[in-house]
Amino acid sequence: MDRILIHEVGPRDGLQAESVVVPTETKLDWIRRMADSGVDIVQVGSFVRGDKMPQMADTDELFRLLGRESHRALLSGLVLNEKGLERALEVGVPLICMGVSASETHSRKNTGMGTEDATRRIIATALEARKAGRKVQVSVQSAFGCGFEGPIDEARVLGIVAAYLDAGLTSISLADTAGHAHPAQVRRYVQKVLGLDPAAEITAHIHNTYGLGMASVYAAMEAGARAIETSFGGLGGCPFTKVAAGNVATEDLVHGLQRTGQRMDIDLAALIGVTKDVAAHFGRELPGCVYRTGPLAAKVTA
Amino acid sequence: MDRILIHEVGPRDGLQAESVVVPTETKLDWIRRMADSGVDIVQVGSFVRGDKMPQMADTDELFRLLGRESHRALLSGLVLNEKGLERALEVGVPLICMGVSASETHSRKNTGMGTEDATRRIIATALEARKAGRKVQVSVQSAFGCGFEGPIDEARVLGIVAAYLDAGLTSISLADTAGHAHPAQVRRYVQKVLGLDPAAEITAHIHNTYGLGMASVYAAMEAGARAIETSFGGLGGCPFTKVAAGNVATEDLVHGLQRTGQRMDIDLAALIGVTKDVAAHFGRELPGCVYRTGPLAAKVTA
Repeated sequence: MDRILIHEVGPRDGLQAESVVVPTETKLDWIRRMADSGVDIVQVGSFVRGDKMPQMADTDELFRLLGRESHRALLSGLVLNEKGLERALEVGVPLICMGVSASETHSRKNTGMGTEDATRRIIATALEARKAGRKVQVSVQSAFGCGFEGPIDEARVLGIVAAYLDAGLTSISLADTAGHAHPAQVRRYVQKVLGLDPAAEITAHIHNTYGLGMASVYAAMEAGARAIETSFGGLGGCPFTKVAAGNVATEDLVHGLQRTGQRMDIDLAALIGVTKDVAAHFGRELPGCVYRTGPLAAKVTA
Repeated sequence: MDRILIHEVGPRDGLQAESVVVPTETKLDWIRRMADSGVDIVQVGSFVRGDKMPQMADTDELFRLLGRESHRALLSGLVLNEKGLERALEVGVPLICMGVSASETHSRKNTGMGTEDATRRIIATALEARKAGRKVQVSVQSAFGCGFEGPIDEARVLGIVAAYLDAGLTSISLADTAGHAHPAQVRRYVQKVLGLDPAAEITAHIHNTYGLGMASVYAAMEAGARAIETSFGGLGGCPFTKVAAGNVATEDLVHGLQRTGQRMDIDLAALIGVTKDVAAHFGRELPGCVYRTGPLAAKVTA
C-alpha cells in the first residue's frame, strides 16, 4: 500500500446527522485541532441552505475564520450546486468536493434531477471550480447500494466515473452513502476504476451500517485507493433510528495504520483528544473503539 | 474463499466476561436457538472451577441436558487442563477445545507454567481426548500480541503450531486474546500456518478491541482460514474497563457473508433474535450492528 491519505469528514458528515446544532466556536476548536493533527484534509462543512440544514449554516463563516489561519491540513467543503459553488469560491475553499448519486431515486430526491442530468451539471460545476484555481474532488454517492433502490448497477457507477475521467476529473470518491458496501465489492470497484485510469486518485467513503466498514476500508486500501474519508469517533448516521451509521472512525483507522508503521506523522493522541471532546459534547458513546481503549502501546506499557 | 464455518463462542467467551451469572434455563434457550440456526459449532461453556468462575459453573449440566437433544450444530466445550478433560469426557462433549498462550507471562498467569511446558501438557491432553473418540481443536492464545507483554514473537507462535501439527493436531485456532491483531498480520500468520501444512484447518478468533476485528476476520478468510469464532452481538471483553472487547459479532459476519451469497443456509433472523434477547437480558447495547439495523434486504424493501 502507498501512503494512505486521511480525509476527516466528521465536521460535515458527522455533525450534519445530529439533531443539535454545534456552536461555531466549538466546531472551530475541533476543526483546528484535527487540521493540525497530521491528517491530510479536513472537511469543514457543506454549502447547503442554512434554513434547510441549520447544522451547516455557519460553513461560510467557518471558512472565513479558518482562511486567515495556517493549518497542516488542506480544508475541504462540500458543494451541491452552482449556488453552493459561488459561496465556496467567495470564501476561498481550497478543496471543493461535489458529487452525483448513482441511484436515480436518491439523485431525484436530493437534486430534483436524475443521475444523467446531475452528472452533466456537476461536471460543469467542477470544471468551473477548477478554472477558478481550486482543487476538486468528485464523488459517486450510493456507489455500493442505495437505501431506496437497493443494489445499484455497477455499470451505472462506472459510467459516472468514466464521465468524470473524460472531463479530466481524476480525484474521485466512491461513497457508500447507505453503508451497503462489502469488501469484495469495494475491492472490485477500486480495481475497475484504476482499470479505466491507473492515475485516478480514488477515495473510499464507507459507512459502518452493517459492521463491515473497516473491512471495506482495508479492501479499498489494498486495491489501490489513495485516500479514506473517516469521521472522528465514527460520528454520523442517525442516532435515533440506528439504521444509518457513521463513517469508519478516524482514530481507529490511524491506529490501525500505525500498527504497521504507516502514517506515524499523524498525532493519534490529538485525534483521540478531539473525539473524547466530541463524545462529551453529545453526551453519548460514539462507535469508535480507540478513543475509549486508548492506543495499544499505552495499554501494553500501562 | 471456501465455505467458511462459523463457531459461535458467545455462550462461553461472551458470558464469562459478564459480572452477572446467566441462569441455566436462559443459556439453554440461547444455545439451542444458536445450535439450530445453521451455524456450525456452538461453544457451550468452559470446564473451569465453578467457584473461580461462577458464570461457567453450569457447563457440565448444560452438556448433560443438551446431550439428550439433537441439534444442527456441533457443540464444543473449552478445557484448560486434565481435570477439565475428565469432566468434558464424562458429559460427552463432541468437540473439545484447548489451548496454550504464546505469551510466557500470560501462560504462567493462566496455568502456572511457561509456554513450552503448557504446550507439552496440552498436546498430551488433546491426544487423550482424541483417543477417547472426541474431535479436538487446539489454539494459540495471545497469538497476535499480549496485554501483558505486548508483541509476541512470530516464531514462538509458529513453534506452537508446528508442535501441534507434529502431534497430528491439525485443527488450530489462532486466538487474538487481547485484540492486538491487524489484517496484514492475520493474513501472514494464516499463510505461514498453511505453509507448514496446507491441510491445516485454521480458525481465527479475533477480538475487536481497536476496531480492526472485522478487517482481520476478512484477512483471515481471504488467506485461507476455514472457520471464524464469533460471539452473538459481539458480546465479550469487560463491559466496565472497556479496554477489552468481544469477538466480532456473529450476525454481522453472517450478514456480510450472505451479501456475497455465502452461507445462505444460516438463518440470519434467528441469530438476530438471539442477540436481541441477549442485549435485552443485559439491558445494554451490544457492539454488533446488524441486530440493531436489521438485515440490509429488510431495510431496502421497508
